[in-house]
Amino acid sequence: MDLPVVGLVGGGHLSRMTYQAAVSLGLSLRVLADASDDSAALVANGVVVGSLTSLADLAALAEGCEVVTFEHEQVPGELVRALEENGHKVYPSSAALLHTQDRLVMRERLSALGAPVPPYAVVSSAEDLSGFAASYGWPVVLKAVQGGYDGSRARVVASLSEAEDLLAGGVRLLAEQHVPVRRELAAVVARSPYGQAAAWPVVETVQADGSCVEVIAPAPRLSDERALQAQELALDLANSLGVVGVLAVELFETADGIVVNGLAMRPHSSGHWTIEGSRTSQFEQHLRAVLDYPLGVTALTAPHVVVATVLGGEGEPELDKRLHLLFGRDPALKVHLHGEAVRPGRTVGHVTALGDDLAETRDRARVGAHYLRTGTWDPS
Amino acid sequence: MDLPVVGLVGGGHLSRMTYQAAVSLGLSLRVLADASDDSAALVANGVVVGSLTSLADLAALAEGCEVVTFEHEQVPGELVRALEENGHKVYPSSAALLHTQDRLVMRERLSALGAPVPPYAVVSSAEDLSGFAASYGWPVVLKAVQGGYDGSRARVVASLSEAEDLLAGGVRLLAEQHVPVRRELAAVVARSPYGQAAAWPVVETVQADGSCVEVIAPAPRLSDERALQAQELALDLANSLGVVGVLAVELFETADGIVVNGLAMRPHSSGHWTIEGSRTSQFEQHLRAVLDYPLGVTALTAPHVVVATVLGGEGEPELDKRLHLLFGRDPALKVHLHGEAVRPGRTVGHVTALGDDLAETRDRARVGAHYLRTGTWDPS
Repeated sequence: MDLPVVGLVGGGHLSRMTYQAAVSLGLSLRVLADASDDSAALVANGVVVGSLTSLADLAALAEGCEVVTFEHEQVPGELVRALEENGHKVYPSSAALLHTQDRLVMRERLSALGAPVPPYAVVSSAEDLSGFAASYGWPVVLKAVQGGYDGSRARVVASLSEAEDLLAGGVRLLAEQHVPVRRELAAVVARSPYGQAAAWPVVETVQADGSCVEVIAPAPRLSDERALQAQELALDLANSLGVVGVLAVELFETADGIVVNGLAMRPHSSGHWTIEGSRTSQFEQHLRAVLDYPLGVTALTAPHVVVATVLGGEGEPELDKRLHLLFGRDPALKVHLHGEAVRPGRTVGHVTALGDDLAETRDRARVGAHYLRTGTWDPS
Repeated sequence: MDLPVVGLVGGGHLSRMTYQAAVSLGLSLRVLADASDDSAALVANGVVVGSLTSLADLAALAEGCEVVTFEHEQVPGELVRALEENGHKVYPSSAALLHTQDRLVMRERLSALGAPVPPYAVVSSAEDLSGFAASYGWPVVLKAVQGGYDGSRARVVASLSEAEDLLAGGVRLLAEQHVPVRRELAAVVARSPYGQAAAWPVVETVQADGSCVEVIAPAPRLSDERALQAQELALDLANSLGVVGVLAVELFETADGIVVNGLAMRPHSSGHWTIEGSRTSQFEQHLRAVLDYPLGVTALTAPHVVVATVLGGEGEPELDKRLHLLFGRDPALKVHLHGEAVRPGRTVGHVTALGDDLAETRDRARVGAHYLRTGTWDPS
C-alpha cells in the first residue's frame, strides 16, 4: 500500500495502543524502544531497539518515515531539533514540545497567553523560597524546572526545612502556590498541521500515590459553562503553542475555577477511555493529526465511561486465572494489558466500564482493576 | 505476564484483526503465515513463516502454545489430527472443522440434526445429475465436496452440457437444489469448551461476483421470530458440532424460511461490524472462546452498523490521498485496511458506518468503500 510510515519514539504501553490503531489504518508504525521486551516492542513488527538520547538511533527511526512522533516528553530538545534540521517532519515540533519539557517555559508562556496558572517563581535559595511563601503562604509545591513525567517529581513542602535537600540538590526549582484542589480534570484535544482541531468531553482524573488511578468521562457534575471553558482553553493552547497531535491539559478545579497543572502532547492516561468510549480513540486521532488527515468524530458510545488503572500487586499475579474469573463476573468489562512483566506498583494495564448509571459504572471499573491486582473482589 | 500464547494458522487479514484483539488482552499471538508480506505478518511480532500443509511448520507454530486455532479451513484434516495426537490443544477440533472442509459431511450432519438445508446429492456422472435435476429442477448448484473458501467454487448450471467440464474434472461434486434466494443472512455465534455460547444479532450479507461486499447489522426487516430461529439454529449447530470459537452460519432466506448455505468456524466477513458495532468484537470473542474465558457481551453500540468491503480497483490506488479526502467528507467512518499490495478485485479492507438511520448509514459505507476503490464519489 502507498500509505505512510510513521516513526514513534518510545516502546511503552502508549506506543502499544497507538500501534493497534495504526494497524487498522493500514499504516506502518515503526517504534523506537529501549529494549525488545518493552510493552510495544513485544507486539510491534519493525522495532528499532535503541536509545532516545542517541541521535543515531533517532535518525535510524526517522529514516524513510513520513513523520516522527512521541509517546513521551523525554527526548532531549536538541535531538528533536537535530532531526528537524536534518529535514525530518517531527510532530509535535521541538518548539511545541519544549512546553512539556520545561515547566518554566510552560508557565511563562501560559501566563503570557492569559491561561489560568497558579502563581509561580523560580527559586534557587532559601531566601527565594521564603519570599515566595511570604507572598503565597505555606505549603509550597516544588517541582524541577525540567524532567519528570506525568506530574511526578513534585513535592509539597510545609516549611523551609522540608525543602533543604531539594534546594541543596543543584536542580533548578519552580515554586508554585499550593492551590486548594477540589478535584483534577483533564481536557484532551487533538490538532492537525492544517489547523483542524477536535475535543473530547472534559474528564475527571483521580490520582493516588502520584499516578492516575481512575478517569471518569465525562467529568461528573461539571457545569456546561466550565466544561466549555476547559475545552476552549485546551483548543486555544493547542493553537497558540502550535501543537500537532493529541494535547492533554491537566487541570485543577478549585473553588474559583480551573488552573492548568500540566501539559502532555501525546496520547495520555486521561484519554484511554476513548478506545471504546468514543467513536475515535485518542490513538487513532493522534495518528490522523500527525499525518494531517482530517480528524475523527469524538462522539461518545455510552453515557458514562470509566477507566481504572490496573497496578501490579504483590506476589504471583495469576493474571490468566484472574481474567477468567473477572470475565465471568463482568462480561461487559474491557481489559487492556501492557504485556510486560508485572512488578508491584507498576502499571499493568487498565479496564474500561461503559454504562448508563455512573455509580454502577465506576464500581465495575474499580472492582475489575482491584481484582486483577489483588485477586480479591472488595476494593474498599 | 503469565498469559497464554495462542497459535493462529493463517497470515491473512482475519489474523491481522485477531492480532489487534490479542494485544489488548495481553496475549502473545503467534501467527503461521505463508510469507512475510502477508497481511498479518506485516504487523505481527513472532511470525512463523511456513506452510499450512507442512506438519513440521504447524508443529513449530504449536510448540509452547496453550491452544492452536485457525483463520481459515484450509489446513488438511490429517495434519490437524496429527497436532491433536501430539498433545496440542486445537480449537476448533479436527472433528468440528471437518464440517467446514467437506460439504457432504456437513450436509449429512445438518440433515441428521434436522437443520434446514437445500436438497442435495453427490453426483459423479451425467446420469446422477440428470436424476437430481429430474427431482429438483434446473438450474442446479454444483460445488466441490472438498475445497473452496467462503462459498467459492460453486457454479449454477442450467443444463447437463454446462456441467460437462465439471463432471469430467474428476472432482467429487455435490449437487444442490437452486433455492430461490430472497437474500442472504448470517448468524454469528461463539462457543467455549465449557459450553458457554453467545450470539450477535443476525445480519444481512450482500454478495457480488462471489464475494461479500456489504453486511448490515442487524438484518433489516427480519422478524423477531425468524431472527431468533436463526440464532437458535447457529447455537444448536455450535453445540452439536462441538465448535469452539466463532461459528458463522451462512443462510439463504427464501419465501418459506431459512436454509443453511455454509459454515465457517473462525472470525468471518459477516462479523467485521462487531469491531466498533458490538461491545465485544468477533476477534476478541474468538480468542476468549478458544482460551475458555467467559465470553463478552454482544450488545450493539449503535442502532445500525453497516460494513462495506473495499476491493482493489484499477491503476494506482493513491490510498493515502483518498484517506485524506474520505476522512474529510465523513469523519465518523471507520476504516480498516489490510496493508497488503493492492490488486484489482482483491480485498483491500473494509469501512464501517454506524448510525441511527439505516438508509443513510448504508449510503455512507457504500460511498466510502467505493471512493477508496475508485477515487470517485458516486457508487451508483
